[in-house]
Amino acid sequence: MRKGKVLVAQGGGPTAVINQSLVGIVQEARRFANVDRIYGAHHGVSGIIKEDLLDLTQETDQNLELIAETPASAMGSTRDKPDAAYCAEILKVLIAHDIRYFFYIGGNDSSDTIRLVNDFAKKENYEMVGIHIPKTIDNDLMINDHTPGFPSAARFVASAFAGANLDNRALPGVYVGVVMGRHAGFLTAAAAGLRRYDSDGPHLIYLPERNFSMDKFLDDVKTAYGKYGRCIIAASEGIHDESGQAIATKLAKEVERDAHGNVQLSGTGALADLLTDSIKGKLGIKRVRGDTFGYLQRSFLGIVSDVDQREAREVGQKGVQFAMYGGKSGTVTIHRVAEYAVEYRLSALEDVAAKTKVMSDNFIASNSADVTPAFMDYLRPLLGGGLPVWSRVQSPAVPKILKK
Amino acid sequence: MRKGKVLVAQGGGPTAVINQSLVGIVQEARRFANVDRIYGAHHGVSGIIKEDLLDLTQETDQNLELIAETPASAMGSTRDKPDAAYCAEILKVLIAHDIRYFFYIGGNDSSDTIRLVNDFAKKENYEMVGIHIPKTIDNDLMINDHTPGFPSAARFVASAFAGANLDNRALPGVYVGVVMGRHAGFLTAAAAGLRRYDSDGPHLIYLPERNFSMDKFLDDVKTAYGKYGRCIIAASEGIHDESGQAIATKLAKEVERDAHGNVQLSGTGALADLLTDSIKGKLGIKRVRGDTFGYLQRSFLGIVSDVDQREAREVGQKGVQFAMYGGKSGTVTIHRVAEYAVEYRLSALEDVAAKTKVMSDNFIASNSADVTPAFMDYLRPLLGGGLPVWSRVQSPAVPKILKK
Repeated sequence: MRKGKVLVAQGGGPTAVINQSLVGIVQEARRFANVDRIYGAHHGVSGIIKEDLLDLTQETDQNLELIAETPASAMGSTRDKPDAAYCAEILKVLIAHDIRYFFYIGGNDSSDTIRLVNDFAKKENYEMVGIHIPKTIDNDLMINDHTPGFPSAARFVASAFAGANLDNRALPGVYVGVVMGRHAGFLTAAAAGLRRYDSDGPHLIYLPERNFSMDKFLDDVKTAYGKYGRCIIAASEGIHDESGQAIATKLAKEVERDAHGNVQLSGTGALADLLTDSIKGKLGIKRVRGDTFGYLQRSFLGIVSDVDQREAREVGQKGVQFAMYGGKSGTVTIHRVAEYAVEYRLSALEDVAAKTKVMSDNFIASNSADVTPAFMDYLRPLLGGGLPVWSRVQSPAVPKILKK
Repeated sequence: MRKGKVLVAQGGGPTAVINQSLVGIVQEARRFANVDRIYGAHHGVSGIIKEDLLDLTQETDQNLELIAETPASAMGSTRDKPDAAYCAEILKVLIAHDIRYFFYIGGNDSSDTIRLVNDFAKKENYEMVGIHIPKTIDNDLMINDHTPGFPSAARFVASAFAGANLDNRALPGVYVGVVMGRHAGFLTAAAAGLRRYDSDGPHLIYLPERNFSMDKFLDDVKTAYGKYGRCIIAASEGIHDESGQAIATKLAKEVERDAHGNVQLSGTGALADLLTDSIKGKLGIKRVRGDTFGYLQRSFLGIVSDVDQREAREVGQKGVQFAMYGGKSGTVTIHRVAEYAVEYRLSALEDVAAKTKVMSDNFIASNSADVTPAFMDYLRPLLGGGLPVWSRVQSPAVPKILKK
């Protein structure tokens, strides 16, 4: 194994378990004699080009375990997308500090970043291994059965809808919850995760994998409301019309884009307000409420899937093992091999980089407004153990005396 | 003790522990030989006048324990506010079913309801005991140190802000979280509950107990952003200008009111959007995000304070004991008698009914944008045990080589 330093950085949106991967890398890398130091960059690649690095070798195991439990990127994150000039800057820093192992924890944007940096290093004949460690609540990385961060966010969304369903049962009306997810509907679909009784909501689920039509939506709501006397709706922030235009941006005065060209959809209640206003206006239903889950769903303190924690730690550890024992660059991918067990493989960066996986057709109900039993089978083991239980009153009705 | 039936109902907004009180009443009432049946009304007083009752005597203990853990009113709730005619209808049903003990679990609106029903029964010479069992996430009942439902909602809000703070630290910017609370700021103030480091948010907290000025707000944000390079803001949905007009309703095209004349503030993202738009427009800060916690905060499945669960069960049990052993109507109130211990008393209904407690001045910082250590001392024991822990990276910086 080549002697040299390890550098780890975190990119993209934070998750509840991204620090598990950070700690997995640090703890595993410490065991290798060829690694003299493990550096961490502040705010992803932006910290690298500023040489804003910390010496993570000098963390205690006790603090590392606390950091692992801490939601959101402990080293800070970035939305920067490096171009060639940016990569040249990164490489200068890697060379200057004799960094030979570079781990970047992130989503498909971040995997593309590491691919570019890695390719650039090859051109410069700088011997290094670059490993992408998967992370995204969107669950949209190719090849992976699922991605670290998604199960915990899914648990939050499932719990939120379970509570909203019970709340709405107590005070009936229409409730719309808007969930993160630009192109992939996995997280919105997780709204169904803790349905128990037949009449439990969400009764309608709208995913970006299907075109959204306001007319069909209002028909669906009317039908469900007629059937249940109430209606719970899960809508992805990324729902769009036939032309591909996001419903949320139809309203926005000015559209905000990040460095990757992604339109900003979260951090505003506009879509929920549009949907609830439409229901009130067109269907004449009075009690209509909308919540936008926003940033609560990705870094909530106290809602986490133990399966997710374990796997996020493992992808970090496996990344180091692949780097040291295999010596090749790549992306760590998660593969479901049993019901329920996973294994980790090192896959080619270009198979994941800048690509988006969406929900397969067999996960989406034929009415385009629900998930299938196949999706529930896929989701359930990810939500983790110790899920809260709940019940309904089962008592018989009291015979009426006055109003027989 | 007078022989007769028990009737229990739940009113107002659901909470995470309102079913603990329901179960406390049912389980305690079962122990009294003079009680032959325990009835529950669907959807509060509205179910009573419809004679829509269930025989809760026929629940199993196992299911009752599951119901106790279930968030949101298991019997359903209502926003109805009975007038004299309504009370006459209620009384007819009570008399027809020989109901002599009436327990209504709810907030100050609900305590007023039971007071009216009870007074009406006296006028009709119908011998009965009416007990109000406290419940409200707003924590705004007079006499009570705090109210069941508040500690769990406070735990949700504190956890949400702890996560949002960490998320915002990873990707710096301005974050506004809008919290429920029409007149009382307790729940918004709970946003500070899990701050740990000096630089942890929320950095600014806006309560309905103080007049809100947009100019001061923008100055505050500018100062905090300058100091921390980011800013987390907790704002009550009930913040209002000097004239008392809610900032949220300044925007609303049409204002929705419930039967109690309360303006509908939740279920829309308008206030968060107004505040974030103002910050973007006036301060020129680019990354500004707003979330409205909405209905997530009062019935979230899986976030609950064990202190709250215990106390909510006890107020139900104590209510039955007061009714049976004392034979007098009243409201069960919670009194803090040690650090930390409470006792329960039966207080006069008129001391709680239709009144609102707000935060005392010693809980609000002199800059009108934070809470005091006294409030933190008040809040901490309520949040319960087993709170999640988190930490920060403590590593030393790596000396720069390129950019010395």
